[in-house]
Amino acid sequence: MKQETIETARLKVLHYLDRAGIKLTPQETTEIEITDLGLNRLDEIGLGLLVYVNTSRVCAKELVLFPHQICPEHKHPAVEGEPGKEETFRCRWGQVYLYVPGPTTPHPKGRVPDDKKEYFTVWHQIILNPGEQYTLAPQTLHWFQGGAEGAVVSEFSTTSRDPFDIFTDPEIRRVG
Amino acid sequence: MKQETIETARLKVLHYLDRAGIKLTPQETTEIEITDLGLNRLDEIGLGLLVYVNTSRVCAKELVLFPHQICPEHKHPAVEGEPGKEETFRCRWGQVYLYVPGPTTPHPKGRVPDDKKEYFTVWHQIILNPGEQYTLAPQTLHWFQGGAEGAVVSEFSTTSRDPFDIFTDPEIRRVG
Repeated sequence: MKQETIETARLKVLHYLDRAGIKLTPQETTEIEITDLGLNRLDEIGLGLLVYVNTSRVCAKELVLFPHQICPEHKHPAVEGEPGKEETFRCRWGQVYLYVPGPTTPHPKGRVPDDKKEYFTVWHQIILNPGEQYTLAPQTLHWFQGGAEGAVVSEFSTTSRDPFDIFTDPEIRRVG
Repeated sequence: MKQETIETARLKVLHYLDRAGIKLTPQETTEIEITDLGLNRLDEIGLGLLVYVNTSRVCAKELVLFPHQICPEHKHPAVEGEPGKEETFRCRWGQVYLYVPGPTTPHPKGRVPDDKKEYFTVWHQIILNPGEQYTLAPQTLHWFQGGAEGAVVSEFSTTSRDPFDIFTDPEIRRVG
């Protein structure tokens, strides 16, 4: 990504967090991470993150999705003898469509790019509105997408080890 | 506590969470826990809690302190071979005074009831304003108090096992 793309996205993420009523320190405003997962199509696929804490036991972060922006399908494998990452998503602002294994939801609200369709294999839809949350068991395949206004989502989880994440799309490499 | 005291406190907690911009489901509004730690002096000692998730690995909750209300000194011991609870407090609204082991802070902002002074033994002060946070290592003795307007604080931690908490004040029993 171009530096300008990252900076523009970072300012947008700050605006979303502000609308969600989430206060940051000045230092944190500089620590917002923008990732396009190496695909260079941030408007469609990618997200903004602010990691509050990530120790050897616990992780908490805010995730920001722009309207219809997708965090693509992946799962968190067992690492070093520990079960995979367990995570709870709690919608704080906007709306998020979360997809997990289970009966395919007819007429899902999520839309994925035509050229990437094959890399979205789970279509059981859970819609999270502000105040609603969902806990994923370790190793659950999942993907999610911001609604029409985008979304701010808190994630409470065990340790994040992003480089170990397994994405369905082989083109994805999780880079900072 | 009288049922009326609990209900009044619960409504106040809802008001604080609302001012902090935190959205709840209707179900969650009924799940807010008010504890006076068995001392029956809620205005001085106690807190409101909303547990979002508490699994065998991860816990997240919101804590609400009324003005000058104290969560009294305690620590989280190792339980069943696991290190004690590790917790991060993140102030979302208001101000919280947190006390941990370390050099005693001269002229601390916290005040404790005269008859309970001996049960507050750590006086190294950390003031958390909205957006500021602090991570406690397991088994760290600590207590905290709401500032002049009270506080809303997110807690991200390993599993909460409240019945195992060790309070300095022997009169305290952690009850629901």
